[in-house]
Amino acid sequence: MEYRIEKDTMGEVQVPADKYWGAQTQRSKMNFKIGGESMHMPNEIIKAFAILKKSAAEANCQLGVLDKEKSDLIGQVCDEILAGKLDDQFPLVVWQTGSGTQSNMNANEVIANRAHVIKGGNLMDAKKFIHPNDDVNKSQSSNDTFPTAMHIAGYKMIVETTLPKVKMLRDTLNEKAVAFKDVVKIGRTHFMDATPLTLGHEFSGYVAQLDFAMKAINNTLTHLSELALGGTAVGTGLNTPKGYSELVASIIAKHSGLPLVTAQNKFEALAAHDAIVESSGALKQLAVSLMKIANDIRMLSSGPRSGIGEITIPENEPGSSIMPGKVNPTQCEAMTMVCAQAIGNDVAISVGGMTGHFELNVFKPMMIYNLLNSARLLGDACESFNEHCAIGIEPNYPVIADKLEKSLMLVTALNPHIGYENAAKIAKKAHKEGKTLREAALELELLTNEQFDEWVVPADMVGSLKD
Amino acid sequence: MEYRIEKDTMGEVQVPADKYWGAQTQRSKMNFKIGGESMHMPNEIIKAFAILKKSAAEANCQLGVLDKEKSDLIGQVCDEILAGKLDDQFPLVVWQTGSGTQSNMNANEVIANRAHVIKGGNLMDAKKFIHPNDDVNKSQSSNDTFPTAMHIAGYKMIVETTLPKVKMLRDTLNEKAVAFKDVVKIGRTHFMDATPLTLGHEFSGYVAQLDFAMKAINNTLTHLSELALGGTAVGTGLNTPKGYSELVASIIAKHSGLPLVTAQNKFEALAAHDAIVESSGALKQLAVSLMKIANDIRMLSSGPRSGIGEITIPENEPGSSIMPGKVNPTQCEAMTMVCAQAIGNDVAISVGGMTGHFELNVFKPMMIYNLLNSARLLGDACESFNEHCAIGIEPNYPVIADKLEKSLMLVTALNPHIGYENAAKIAKKAHKEGKTLREAALELELLTNEQFDEWVVPADMVGSLKD
Amino acid sequence: MEYRIEKDTMGEVQVPADKYWGAQTQRSKMNFKIGGESMHMPNEIIKAFAILKKSAAEANCQLGVLDKEKSDLIGQVCDEILAGKLDDQFPLVVWQTGSGTQSNMNANEVIANRAHVIKGGNLMDAKKFIHPNDDVNKSQSSNDTFPTAMHIAGYKMIVETTLPKVKMLRDTLNEKAVAFKDVVKIGRTHFMDATPLTLGHEFSGYVAQLDFAMKAINNTLTHLSELALGGTAVGTGLNTPKGYSELVASIIAKHSGLPLVTAQNKFEALAAHDAIVESSGALKQLAVSLMKIANDIRMLSSGPRSGIGEITIPENEPGSSIMPGKVNPTQCEAMTMVCAQAIGNDVAISVGGMTGHFELNVFKPMMIYNLLNSARLLGDACESFNEHCAIGIEPNYPVIADKLEKSLMLVTALNPHIGYENAAKIAKKAHKEGKTLREAALELELLTNEQFDEWVVPADMVGSLKD
Amino acid sequence: MEYRIEKDTMGEVQVPADKYWGAQTQRSKMNFKIGGESMHMPNEIIKAFAILKKSAAEANCQLGVLDKEKSDLIGQVCDEILAGKLDDQFPLVVWQTGSGTQSNMNANEVIANRAHVIKGGNLMDAKKFIHPNDDVNKSQSSNDTFPTAMHIAGYKMIVETTLPKVKMLRDTLNEKAVAFKDVVKIGRTHFMDATPLTLGHEFSGYVAQLDFAMKAINNTLTHLSELALGGTAVGTGLNTPKGYSELVASIIAKHSGLPLVTAQNKFEALAAHDAIVESSGALKQLAVSLMKIANDIRMLSSGPRSGIGEITIPENEPGSSIMPGKVNPTQCEAMTMVCAQAIGNDVAISVGGMTGHFELNVFKPMMIYNLLNSARLLGDACESFNEHCAIGIEPNYPVIADKLEKSLMLVTALNPHIGYENAAKIAKKAHKEGKTLREAALELELLTNEQFDEWVVPADMVGSLKD
Repeated sequence: MEYRIEKDTMGEVQVPADKYWGAQTQRSKMNFKIGGESMHMPNEIIKAFAILKKSAAEANCQLGVLDKEKSDLIGQVCDEILAGKLDDQFPLVVWQTGSGTQSNMNANEVIANRAHVIKGGNLMDAKKFIHPNDDVNKSQSSNDTFPTAMHIAGYKMIVETTLPKVKMLRDTLNEKAVAFKDVVKIGRTHFMDATPLTLGHEFSGYVAQLDFAMKAINNTLTHLSELALGGTAVGTGLNTPKGYSELVASIIAKHSGLPLVTAQNKFEALAAHDAIVESSGALKQLAVSLMKIANDIRMLSSGPRSGIGEITIPENEPGSSIMPGKVNPTQCEAMTMVCAQAIGNDVAISVGGMTGHFELNVFKPMMIYNLLNSARLLGDACESFNEHCAIGIEPNYPVIADKLEKSLMLVTALNPHIGYENAAKIAKKAHKEGKTLREAALELELLTNEQFDEWVVPADMVGSLKD
Repeated sequence: MEYRIEKDTMGEVQVPADKYWGAQTQRSKMNFKIGGESMHMPNEIIKAFAILKKSAAEANCQLGVLDKEKSDLIGQVCDEILAGKLDDQFPLVVWQTGSGTQSNMNANEVIANRAHVIKGGNLMDAKKFIHPNDDVNKSQSSNDTFPTAMHIAGYKMIVETTLPKVKMLRDTLNEKAVAFKDVVKIGRTHFMDATPLTLGHEFSGYVAQLDFAMKAINNTLTHLSELALGGTAVGTGLNTPKGYSELVASIIAKHSGLPLVTAQNKFEALAAHDAIVESSGALKQLAVSLMKIANDIRMLSSGPRSGIGEITIPENEPGSSIMPGKVNPTQCEAMTMVCAQAIGNDVAISVGGMTGHFELNVFKPMMIYNLLNSARLLGDACESFNEHCAIGIEPNYPVIADKLEKSLMLVTALNPHIGYENAAKIAKKAHKEGKTLREAALELELLTNEQFDEWVVPADMVGSLKD
Repeated sequence: MEYRIEKDTMGEVQVPADKYWGAQTQRSKMNFKIGGESMHMPNEIIKAFAILKKSAAEANCQLGVLDKEKSDLIGQVCDEILAGKLDDQFPLVVWQTGSGTQSNMNANEVIANRAHVIKGGNLMDAKKFIHPNDDVNKSQSSNDTFPTAMHIAGYKMIVETTLPKVKMLRDTLNEKAVAFKDVVKIGRTHFMDATPLTLGHEFSGYVAQLDFAMKAINNTLTHLSELALGGTAVGTGLNTPKGYSELVASIIAKHSGLPLVTAQNKFEALAAHDAIVESSGALKQLAVSLMKIANDIRMLSSGPRSGIGEITIPENEPGSSIMPGKVNPTQCEAMTMVCAQAIGNDVAISVGGMTGHFELNVFKPMMIYNLLNSARLLGDACESFNEHCAIGIEPNYPVIADKLEKSLMLVTALNPHIGYENAAKIAKKAHKEGKTLREAALELELLTNEQFDEWVVPADMVGSLKD
Repeated sequence: MEYRIEKDTMGEVQVPADKYWGAQTQRSKMNFKIGGESMHMPNEIIKAFAILKKSAAEANCQLGVLDKEKSDLIGQVCDEILAGKLDDQFPLVVWQTGSGTQSNMNANEVIANRAHVIKGGNLMDAKKFIHPNDDVNKSQSSNDTFPTAMHIAGYKMIVETTLPKVKMLRDTLNEKAVAFKDVVKIGRTHFMDATPLTLGHEFSGYVAQLDFAMKAINNTLTHLSELALGGTAVGTGLNTPKGYSELVASIIAKHSGLPLVTAQNKFEALAAHDAIVESSGALKQLAVSLMKIANDIRMLSSGPRSGIGEITIPENEPGSSIMPGKVNPTQCEAMTMVCAQAIGNDVAISVGGMTGHFELNVFKPMMIYNLLNSARLLGDACESFNEHCAIGIEPNYPVIADKLEKSLMLVTALNPHIGYENAAKIAKKAHKEGKTLREAALELELLTNEQFDEWVVPADMVGSLKD
């Protein structure tokens, strides 16, 4: 491997000759060998930095503190980053300095050096046309850029991945709720047989859960839309030109297509990451909802012979070569594993969020890593679950009818006709002797077959909420 | 101890002769000896049941399914419960059936028996004037009453205890932010000396955190305002008169003084408790915020000699008899312990919330126990912290001035006048020799004493956000 | 209410005339109005302080720094505390100073004043015979006494409540495992029908889980057995006589009946509470195990008609007055709620444990509150579950036989006789047409009724581990 | 891209022509698009499968159910996997079926196809020499192989990465404890000035924490050493030859070099993963310990002028170009972020561990993903922290001396000479007027300069534990 020498205030560092990054990136690579390849700073953060650096350059140019040529060059490299052309230039891991300084410098160094090359320069040149700190990082500090990148990336992931994919699943479940609205079935409370409801009722409950979860997530976006940029080192905005905060936020909003704004209080935006805590809390609520839904579907489809088996789900993979009809609820399993992860991630985020000191929280990379992880996994799992499971859910009518008919709870319908005590006699006899209510009722000669048909109509028991 | 005999469908049970409760309450006492005295069902739930039972009786009466005399008697007992006159009639613990059925029956039994006595009856009478199930529980099921009581109690605790007490602390911190707006001090990032800001800036960050936390909590109240009542056993509203759900919710709203409404989807309201998960998530966010704030204040007031010591806090208890000036930040300690508890409680609630099955979540008592616990502890801790700590916070001006003056970061201000390299020489010399910047600068003869006074003005460094 | 005046270095305080506590206890009562009655410092801590103070007095006496009369008086009051005679003298809440200083002073003050009265003095006397600090607290600091009380109370609760009650449940489950060893039933993986095993196999898995959990808890006792006492203020043992640490630990061991020893490193014992974290972690593992077990039993007993219903559990409370046979698995519900709580408590303890600073962790009361809470709740829940559920578990033989016979998985047994492809034809036909394997096999004329009887013997499929 | 056709019982699937995997792997790739590249099944699990498959083939061969040629071929491919030559043949993600079946089949398919090619066959051949199920998976089920791979991988990571790297840090801290044993410094309780101890005392506390943490982790290895292999589908060992479980475990032990044994209870080993919960709990304890240690070091090194500054840590990266001496405690930051992650991961593992049903826990991939993640991150972070921070820690003697001398707590030493009241006068005056104790004492003319030198000797206050 060939190297070139890069310098910083601590001296010389060897950097791979074909890489655009500089001394500070290289030092971080050497000093933080933690977690390996799969623990790279999320690509979403790299992309967010590209939007940020381009926007800052434009704002600096408009405000007269950076010349147009430099601003354009910076923008050009950022466009390359956004197009994925420089993905291999960002080698740092999540587990670095807690301010994300080294990833900010990674962006600054790559942009400066790549811009120099675009302008015709050579990476070996002692002096580059663009300076990573003085130009690319102008009017910025790691302390306000990294949280800004966190909010851009987190907001984007939630509105572009999480919410639409949850919505997809919600809409499918709603279609099922409508389609199944007349499928009367036995209810279960305490996991025990209870009075009937419709399969549509059950699915409407899932829809309501996801509606509430999406609303809760949406509620957090206001906080997440606030950008720290303009606060610089400690929130005072030292070294920023007048009007910079508002201008740069509006340019970021334009380039990202997201309704982002400058933070009302920059001290909070650097020292705390309650917006991340808040969004993660809402994602955790979604995880709780999805865990319930996926568990119900897992159990409702259980069997085929010795479970509950009231619905069927698509067969996506061969079951055992021996047992036809064995369909493992694998999408439920992937979903519930993702939910467990999101619940754990939320605790990691809480621990990070609560441990900031004075002017800076230094759990930034860990916090955004977990937020992006939860937001993406939950979204992806919803899409997968929707496509490979929810869409194909169908009632298993014979099982539903059988379990409904056998239900002892239906005896309730006889109370007005033969009185509570007689009804109880029927139920007790049926339970004790393992008979149907009808059989028990007829044997006790408390009513006729026709009367049973007329009076015991489960569809009439699904209540005042049916319509 | 004297007993009377109460009966239910399983047979006879001995109940203390002087208690109003009946067989089912007594069975629960015997079957759930878990956790002891301090683990009683929270009194807020008992009170919420009183509001609920009174409102249900009125609704049933208005809809013609319960006569006026019974309704009035039920209301009268409920008023006694609300006045705290029957507190010793609710002996059950949190750790009972997961639907809270036994606490619902406890309320039904006490109300029925007490009403019977009010009407002139005797507890030993075989037949009572009011029936716990047929009258007190009319148009209800444990499955919709308990979650309704959860929402009434949780909503009430949050708006009457948590939010106003947080607001109290927020307002004090805001007064401090204003009062300290010109107190320029050294900033700290990475727990290390950084560029200056004002003490008011720091406090404004705390205010922003609490504003966001209150907003997040408020966002959850819509979900929490939805009442399950009217869903009865499985959400279908079996055995409720037409119009009941809306009517009873409006009466509960009137009696509680809270903007409560009937739930849009009763299946969700019984089978999931995402509203509790949602509110707990917001309380957890508040805990994260308060942990940061209390930690900062603990550290800012540390010393008196060998800590940071930039603020003083009230001395509430004798420190050591030997060391005058030792003030332990005990309110910070109580606060941070409460925050840790709320973060743990949130996990317990998540576990409960995710584990509902089919038509009923059976972690109800545990979930509301933790929500009320977090809501109350956080509120109480804010009030205590406010009164016994925040109100008395004052800047320690000499320490602030001393640390600011010693700060090597101020050298930044010299860059425009003597150039970066000369400024760096000063800073390096000062650091190496343990001198002030002024001393180092004068020894290096790079500027005069008067120039130092003119150029190094920390107040000019607190940035564009100062105003 | 009548008051007397008590003084400390901050001045005078009004104390209820009939209480033994002094100024510092009263100040804490006034300064920490957080959480109310149910949030009192656990009584186990008060009792542990009584053992500690008595032991310290004896050690001080033996080492010649406290005279015999004072030592005896202190011991006499401690015996009263242990007998529960002074329970109303400890009014402080968990949410106080994080070192527990105020509860230590509460003990010191009550012991000193009560001793003074025992000796014939009057609470109004300006000077008391025994001094709370100089005598009762001699050779001690809050910083080493409170963690010592934590370990005494935690160790005691675990070995006297948690472990024996878990063992009780474990033994019952083991009896069931033996009793059910020949009950062949269908297995379930992915919640789906699978190859058979015995009901005894299932229960043996529960026994193994509890054996592992008890072993894990036992593993933590070594750490918990180490006492901080002798470290005093910062771990150096300032103001303790030579030989004190070992001596006082041995006396505490004698009085408590527990194998407690002096901590090898007093600095760790004050500054960190990893022993509490460690024990809580093991209790959390137990909670995870019990959640699985209680969930399985809930599901195995579900029905009576439309669930799995392979076992029956005791009916402890009336089910619905309508539906005989409805047995809600209420003990499973109490158990799983307790497990959720213990999992949440563990997070609270982790947060507290990780946030100590320098020489002292100041989350002490919160940490021990949660540990005692988990240890007691899990123990109590095991006892309750054992007595009211596990003991009465019985196989539901007809259901087990029916589900086993219907199982399509049994077709596997035919492979050696008629070949895989023919076996698959039978299974597919049975699944598609909703028939038994026998019916399908006979209809396909692939084997005779007698051959089916001979070849399809589930008991032969429960494998090499059966014996 | 070129494809070949692979078939399974559901029909044909297109597989990339150059890949060894088969139909089931391909289906999983298509059905579980969750989380992307960085969410691949950990390579440690792939390697563990290679050890397992090789060992199973050998055991099957020895027991006469697999011929030698096939066994050797399987072993040969497993060696290629272990050598990293087939890393790109395992494309599946963590978020798949909860039993890990698809990763088991991925291993089976790759081994079978690669063996076929080694033997001279062609991937397009309709029939292969080795069958993925009948040969590679012989005497196995996903349900016992995946948990076996979990234990192999988890055990290996803990003993080869976590423990030795923690030990490395522990030994460095112990060297510091010895080296600093005479460095008397001010102690801090409640983050406030307290009586003195030595810097060595503080580090000895850290060493004790890590010793306890390593012991706790070691305690969990017994459980983790138990292998599920031999239980097959539901724990009964269906389709395994006699003696297989013990034999295959001993071969795995040999090939892995780890003291692994066959599980005593296979039902527990499939249905629960309490061993993972247990090990994760111990890793969480380690995280709690490291959080305390890293926080202390962060704070002790804070400054350089306005913090605590009693120690210096290595400068690894350039601080600000303006402020010499600014050393950010970046290793502390990476460490504390890792700790937060491990605490969160532990919750995810608890949620997964508690949610198994009947004969199978289906959160397997998520659980081992988090355990490996915590075990590796904590190990790596310890190594990084050790090398780039701990080794270079040095006392900042002037600061230590200065803070010690200024400490008001030293007045305690005067009590025996001039009495408590006079000592208190000195301390109060010093605190009020911002003077040293010496200045205050001399001004009050309570003792001479020489007497102060003789009596106020902090080194004599570090207590009975000093030696």
